[in-house]
Amino acid sequence: MLNSRLNRIAFVVTLALGLCGEVRAQRRATWIWYPGDYEIWLSNQMQNRRTERGSFFPPFWRLDSHYALVDFHQDFDLKEAEQIELRAEGQYNVKLDGKLLTGAPEQLTVPAGKHRLNIKVYNQQHVPAVFVRGKTIGTDGSWLVTFEDKEWIDASGKVSDQSGTTWLTAGSWNFDDAQALPSAFQLRTEPRRATRVTRNADGSLLVDFGRETFGYVRLHGLQGQGPATLYFGESREEALSVEGCETLERLEINQPQKADKLTTLSKAFRYVNIRPEQGVTLDSVSMLYEYAPVTQRGRFRSSDAQLNKIWDVAAYTMDLTTREFFIDGIKRDRWVWSGDAYQSYLMNYYLYFDTPTVNRTTFALRGKDPVTSHVNTIMDYTFYWFIGIYDAYQYTGDKTVVQQLYPRMQSLMDYCLSRRNQDGYMEGLAGDWVFIDWADGLSKKGEVSFEQLLLCRSLESMALCANLVNDQAGARKYQQLAADLKAKIFATYWNAEKGALVHSRVNGQPTEHVTRYANMFSIFFGYLTPAQQQQVKQSVLLNSQVPKITTPYMRFYELEALCALGEQPYVLKEMKSYWGGMLELGATSFWEEYDPSKKGPEHLAMYGRPFGKSLCHAWGASPIYLLGKYYLGVKPLSAGYTTYEIVPSLGGLEWMEGTVPTPQGDITVRATARQLKVKGAAGTGVLRFTSKSKPSCKGTRIQAKGNGQYELPLAPGKEYVVSYQAAD
Amino acid sequence: MLNSRLNRIAFVVTLALGLCGEVRAQRRATWIWYPGDYEIWLSNQMQNRRTERGSFFPPFWRLDSHYALVDFHQDFDLKEAEQIELRAEGQYNVKLDGKLLTGAPEQLTVPAGKHRLNIKVYNQQHVPAVFVRGKTIGTDGSWLVTFEDKEWIDASGKVSDQSGTTWLTAGSWNFDDAQALPSAFQLRTEPRRATRVTRNADGSLLVDFGRETFGYVRLHGLQGQGPATLYFGESREEALSVEGCETLERLEINQPQKADKLTTLSKAFRYVNIRPEQGVTLDSVSMLYEYAPVTQRGRFRSSDAQLNKIWDVAAYTMDLTTREFFIDGIKRDRWVWSGDAYQSYLMNYYLYFDTPTVNRTTFALRGKDPVTSHVNTIMDYTFYWFIGIYDAYQYTGDKTVVQQLYPRMQSLMDYCLSRRNQDGYMEGLAGDWVFIDWADGLSKKGEVSFEQLLLCRSLESMALCANLVNDQAGARKYQQLAADLKAKIFATYWNAEKGALVHSRVNGQPTEHVTRYANMFSIFFGYLTPAQQQQVKQSVLLNSQVPKITTPYMRFYELEALCALGEQPYVLKEMKSYWGGMLELGATSFWEEYDPSKKGPEHLAMYGRPFGKSLCHAWGASPIYLLGKYYLGVKPLSAGYTTYEIVPSLGGLEWMEGTVPTPQGDITVRATARQLKVKGAAGTGVLRFTSKSKPSCKGTRIQAKGNGQYELPLAPGKEYVVSYQAAD
Repeated sequence: MLNSRLNRIAFVVTLALGLCGEVRAQRRATWIWYPGDYEIWLSNQMQNRRTERGSFFPPFWRLDSHYALVDFHQDFDLKEAEQIELRAEGQYNVKLDGKLLTGAPEQLTVPAGKHRLNIKVYNQQHVPAVFVRGKTIGTDGSWLVTFEDKEWIDASGKVSDQSGTTWLTAGSWNFDDAQALPSAFQLRTEPRRATRVTRNADGSLLVDFGRETFGYVRLHGLQGQGPATLYFGESREEALSVEGCETLERLEINQPQKADKLTTLSKAFRYVNIRPEQGVTLDSVSMLYEYAPVTQRGRFRSSDAQLNKIWDVAAYTMDLTTREFFIDGIKRDRWVWSGDAYQSYLMNYYLYFDTPTVNRTTFALRGKDPVTSHVNTIMDYTFYWFIGIYDAYQYTGDKTVVQQLYPRMQSLMDYCLSRRNQDGYMEGLAGDWVFIDWADGLSKKGEVSFEQLLLCRSLESMALCANLVNDQAGARKYQQLAADLKAKIFATYWNAEKGALVHSRVNGQPTEHVTRYANMFSIFFGYLTPAQQQQVKQSVLLNSQVPKITTPYMRFYELEALCALGEQPYVLKEMKSYWGGMLELGATSFWEEYDPSKKGPEHLAMYGRPFGKSLCHAWGASPIYLLGKYYLGVKPLSAGYTTYEIVPSLGGLEWMEGTVPTPQGDITVRATARQLKVKGAAGTGVLRFTSKSKPSCKGTRIQAKGNGQYELPLAPGKEYVVSYQAAD
Repeated sequence: MLNSRLNRIAFVVTLALGLCGEVRAQRRATWIWYPGDYEIWLSNQMQNRRTERGSFFPPFWRLDSHYALVDFHQDFDLKEAEQIELRAEGQYNVKLDGKLLTGAPEQLTVPAGKHRLNIKVYNQQHVPAVFVRGKTIGTDGSWLVTFEDKEWIDASGKVSDQSGTTWLTAGSWNFDDAQALPSAFQLRTEPRRATRVTRNADGSLLVDFGRETFGYVRLHGLQGQGPATLYFGESREEALSVEGCETLERLEINQPQKADKLTTLSKAFRYVNIRPEQGVTLDSVSMLYEYAPVTQRGRFRSSDAQLNKIWDVAAYTMDLTTREFFIDGIKRDRWVWSGDAYQSYLMNYYLYFDTPTVNRTTFALRGKDPVTSHVNTIMDYTFYWFIGIYDAYQYTGDKTVVQQLYPRMQSLMDYCLSRRNQDGYMEGLAGDWVFIDWADGLSKKGEVSFEQLLLCRSLESMALCANLVNDQAGARKYQQLAADLKAKIFATYWNAEKGALVHSRVNGQPTEHVTRYANMFSIFFGYLTPAQQQQVKQSVLLNSQVPKITTPYMRFYELEALCALGEQPYVLKEMKSYWGGMLELGATSFWEEYDPSKKGPEHLAMYGRPFGKSLCHAWGASPIYLLGKYYLGVKPLSAGYTTYEIVPSLGGLEWMEGTVPTPQGDITVRATARQLKVKGAAGTGVLRFTSKSKPSCKGTRIQAKGNGQYELPLAPGKEYVVSYQAAD
């Protein structure tokens, strides 16, 4: 008994030492994992939360999984011995200089000098992850990880000296504490009140939360025995349609004493129709609003109140659809769709500048090898995935994620290239969804020009990323493929008479049909000559004979193309009319589709279902991007905003002011027709503007570029106030 | 309240109907999953149970996982409506004719006529699996499964009509009841007593279980507080070596009242050295023997008692190493190694004929795409994997598993072919372990002839399997590659002067070095001319100047080669000397390595560790195979024993008798020098033998083949007794 007590005392002493060690530790540390693994695992959870009228409704594409067995290591050269704290999610072992330590230690001392620490973790259910912290040692993105260490021994016990193992740098997020287990991650919640509760004679309640929202419903003072069904509605009509609403939850109540109860699965709604069966009563209803921990750093205000409201509702739409990942819509699909996410990335750069959410979404979309289908099964969505990675680098300057992703970029591009037809074009093979847009009668036959254009841009992204990871041969290959394809696209699809790229090539012949898609992308991809640009603007973009776009998704690009051509005044009117149109119909978040010609409940229907349409869809929020990039006029000129430009364009507004977030701080812009006030926290900027008179800015020299064009170089941290006279 | 009670009554009635439905159901049903997924999942569990002195010791190769989201479907044409019971492991939904049913139904009625039932299951932790049973409907290997159904809809709700989805037939085992969840599988256990317990003055106990065994140790009447450590030993020396034993378990006891306690992890041992700290006492010790549910159908008895003992100990060695999978050894590595498993397959065909264990092991070894290393990282082990699949088809006739595996065979062969050097040979690249055998000083440099020979055989396997799945182009391709490689092997490695294949080619030149490996394989692969066979026999197999083999692993093939050359008398002596040698040293199961020249505890050491050697290794059990195939002389001539031969060879024994299992029943053989008695339950056999005098068999006609050779065709279910006179 004495012996055993001594042991327990020793244990307590060790713990105390451990705590002291923790206090002493100065090094920041974070939980790490194999790059992409946590993202894939978390997206599996997210994407399997969709239900349709109470039935589980998972994605129809392949879901991958984390590697169940992962080895982590780091080499150290310590001036003095260091005690470290060690945690792992999963069953694990620890090797110091290749020697296995006893058991699964939670603390150990690394001696002074050069040493290697390996931790190997097995976890089938959750992602293998480790957290190590000492005075100078700490897990972070510099640790190396692999899913196969290939370390065999021979019969004498000698370890193989040529392992051929591929190591990547570790993935991480913000789990910066030993107790903050990645597997336990949950979005945050906070209570919200209902704005209006209507009680009906039959005991049912219609609850209005005032605007589109997301989370759990809390029933207060619930009592009785029997079922209660909650019918959710993004619209009042949907909540009241017991037979037609898209989502519902049935609770079994067995509550002799009054108690509160939460619904089990977070859902999208503004209205909830709560129908307790006879014998079940409740006092009141509230909700737990569920949200991602992101901050709106971007801001926009102007002289136009409607435009401000549009920006606010767009930002709120982004708040709702920015969750564990950038998802499409909060009612449905609650999935990670590459085309939708690509727009969320761009909006994010002007709203949150939350790079971890971009990276998580990119990893989740890609999954793992082998490639057995396009991203989300959609050909165009594969291409957006490539393009998004280069955009991300341009905005964030995060080269590490490009290095982590590059092998998966290569294998996905191999898949694409292997699916070209004998003429070198991509066309839809069995299992390829050629999506483009939701548009009645849109042809997907043959070789669609839009898809070739996106492939061309993807190849350019590959070339740029190949350079970033020092794959020179790859860079040359992809650049050549892109150049060849671009030449071919114009040789095939450009119709000089129509002044446009035609929609497709069928049976080896270009069609006569013109749509907006390839034409608008060719503008902001910079693929057109100035003359072609003007032709396309007139013959396609401003031509009402060309089929109209009815989704905010493609309006995003249509308006971006017009902005790129300097049509801000026109685009401003379009924004006010289109997004303003939704607001006039009572929208509190922006929709998946909006066709102004529709009436009443027609606006709620889609996919052949009366309430099929999502009334809160990320791709509805594009004014965020357009106003930030083409009105405030801020964009990076080199990776991570080390250089950037500000080209303010009022587009008819009396004034506007706003903030654009960047990696190292914010850029603020205020503009009237007479004064420009700008400031960038970091990086080297340039302010470009036109002025009818000679502009001035105290203490600086404005460069005249001719034709009324001026440029002002911007140093970090300094505010510039320019007097000028805007062109009418 | 009334309403709610009515509902509950309805629920009870439904349950009752459900039970009736179950009683009425006539159809057998079994839990099904995506082929290979359960096997991979279960092997992850199995392979992560290795510990080394209390530390977790996982494999160093990649562990794959099941698909987390799987769709199962079946089409029916029902004469009458049918109620079915439905269970799934995971979150699931059910579609009838493409229409999603409400919730997650456990029962439903499929109407009369043609219908399709889809069940989609998500499970990250366990393998998505379903069980459906009705009168005529039941889940089985005819259901189709996929990990991506690619079923998208357009904006009108119309489902895509060109899905491009790949469907495979479902995997299953023996979970034939709705309650028998695959995730809950555990090996069986039964209590066993210790044969001898020695109590020491210091309170420790040395327990001897009489022979090598496996399972959990149960401490009876345990009382007190403090730790107790169990040191396991395959030998007495190992158990007594507190510092040197390979496995141990430390228990924390906190037991004011006497109680029994089991160890937590099953382990291999004959001896257990139990050392409770002061203050902890126990009354007695027993164990729970853990074993796989396989049955010894094969049998062998002869006039030689030592040989019978060898067969018994070999069979027991197989009993111990046949677990969830065929593993290498029960102390270590407890992993699934392809080279080891390949021999277990062959022994299995003469002992259990348990095809599910062969198939499980094959799937577990292969894992999933992409291929990033050789199977177990070992080049030769990749090749055994290919060869094992064709062998399995030959013995079992199971074509379904070939169809399920074929895509993974193709991608693994692509990997191999892509790693050939410029001269078309396989040599070890970084990360490739060229194993061959545990043998001091064995060269792995350059292009080893043995590896080319195995690649050649693998290509032949590919060609044969390609034919089975109707991939004619593949069959031609692989056949041609095999033929070209075989010609090249003999042009390069055959040294006419030495009468042997040389060991390797280094820097473009064949070496002069001769080893046994390639030479013995070339014999039973049938790659040698009769003249070459005789040369190899003399200059290699019976030549004591060629380095000796010290593992039962390669003795397996060495003795097989000699048997194939009709050297049964010689091989019998070798078996008695080599395996008999281990028995004389007290072996109760056969070892990983046995070098008769070693002494005492030297026999226990390996890998630079005093007790590193496994004393129960599957590859030690080869007499099972040799005696069944080359003495009883039974082997299939066409897939699944539809035709087979019996070529008894006494090899100097006075008599032998035995049973060889086949898919449709047993084949029994009894032989003396004067009488042969044979019977096959199914299939068409042929008995081949030599006789110095004219043989006879009542009621049948024996065919004389000349040179004293005779043949007797065997009909199923009939016993034949042949009088003859064996050659001396």
